[in-house]
Amino acid sequence: MIPILTAFEQSPDRGRGLARDMRVRWALEEVGQPYDVRLVSFTEMKEAAHRALHPFGQIPTYEEGDLALFESGAIVFHIAARHAGLLPPHSDANARARAIAWMFAALSTVEPPIVEREQASHVERDKPWHDERLPLLEDRIRGRLDELSRRLGDADWLDGGFSAGDLMMVMVLRRLEGSGLLEKYRNLSAYVARGQARPAYKRAFAAQLAVFTGKPPTA
Amino acid sequence: MIPILTAFEQSPDRGRGLARDMRVRWALEEVGQPYDVRLVSFTEMKEAAHRALHPFGQIPTYEEGDLALFESGAIVFHIAARHAGLLPPHSDANARARAIAWMFAALSTVEPPIVEREQASHVERDKPWHDERLPLLEDRIRGRLDELSRRLGDADWLDGGFSAGDLMMVMVLRRLEGSGLLEKYRNLSAYVARGQARPAYKRAFAAQLAVFTGKPPTA
Repeated sequence: MIPILTAFEQSPDRGRGLARDMRVRWALEEVGQPYDVRLVSFTEMKEAAHRALHPFGQIPTYEEGDLALFESGAIVFHIAARHAGLLPPHSDANARARAIAWMFAALSTVEPPIVEREQASHVERDKPWHDERLPLLEDRIRGRLDELSRRLGDADWLDGGFSAGDLMMVMVLRRLEGSGLLEKYRNLSAYVARGQARPAYKRAFAAQLAVFTGKPPTA
Repeated sequence: MIPILTAFEQSPDRGRGLARDMRVRWALEEVGQPYDVRLVSFTEMKEAAHRALHPFGQIPTYEEGDLALFESGAIVFHIAARHAGLLPPHSDANARARAIAWMFAALSTVEPPIVEREQASHVERDKPWHDERLPLLEDRIRGRLDELSRRLGDADWLDGGFSAGDLMMVMVLRRLEGSGLLEKYRNLSAYVARGQARPAYKRAFAAQLAVFTGKPPTA
């Protein structure tokens, strides 16, 4: 059964692959699972039919037979739980639990201050306080990056081999592109590049870009 | 093997049970798993020994034999995966995946704007912009609550029986206590009260409170 994702019909990021469907596409490519995509407009996302799939009116959603899921973290976990390749095997239960912990860390601890900075840039850019607040927001992000960089050290991935935890963390860190905040951390920059160099990442990136260029993926 | 949690030695919330160890205590009580607690000071939380357990220098951590975990979401998931009572059985794989989705939704979609409001109250209370920004922050929270309230409707829990998804959502919504934001939503207020009425919740609450009162739990 081919799962169906939803993704933005119009790209807020011009195909830079920062929308959350990219996380799911990458996971599906890592495990070799083909998928279909249904594009939704901003209007459709807030309508009842889409809200039946996603209570918060966002993308991505994931439909697979009778199952409908929302939340990129939950969808990636679902894919990782049902296919080999994104989590250590059940026989290494401790390593599996730690990889799952990195998924939660990416989404609950590292991403929120990064989203706040984006949010401020979108919504409060013209407010008189924006210039004074921005350094506060960036200090919070740097606090997280300091800690993440220290933990990663010289390793390729956060805990042993590449996992769904790395997938989520790389995607979260990519949201800092253009901010100048990540470049100071050589190991984190190399970590993101290592994720982007994976063939599955490249296929997923090409597929999401093709939605916006109208050209078929060439990866 | 008795797992060991870490929790705050000094209570930032005076034992109101809003610190993230409460989520793990509640989960352990739901499944009937005894546990020990090691209290850590704010200084110790930032030292190398604790950072070896928690790269971001926070609580809770969870140690069980050779396994060390961090992130309350990951710890609750670990407990739920290894014991009956917090997730639908593997034989109902779709319901299980949806319950996990609500865990991610609580942590990734509902909690971040609530944390932002707290963060502003702590860090930006004396800034000249605080009074003007607060309504913006509260509008974001209300947007999420509107959607959550609509989805919950008249149901007792978010998707069938009580699950780890409800546990996380109730704890996230409790962070709004004193803000006046939750009271408008009768079904969400009743939902939180329903969680707090569970015997396992009460035992967990009493145990975390006893740390700060010095009196043994009486629940």
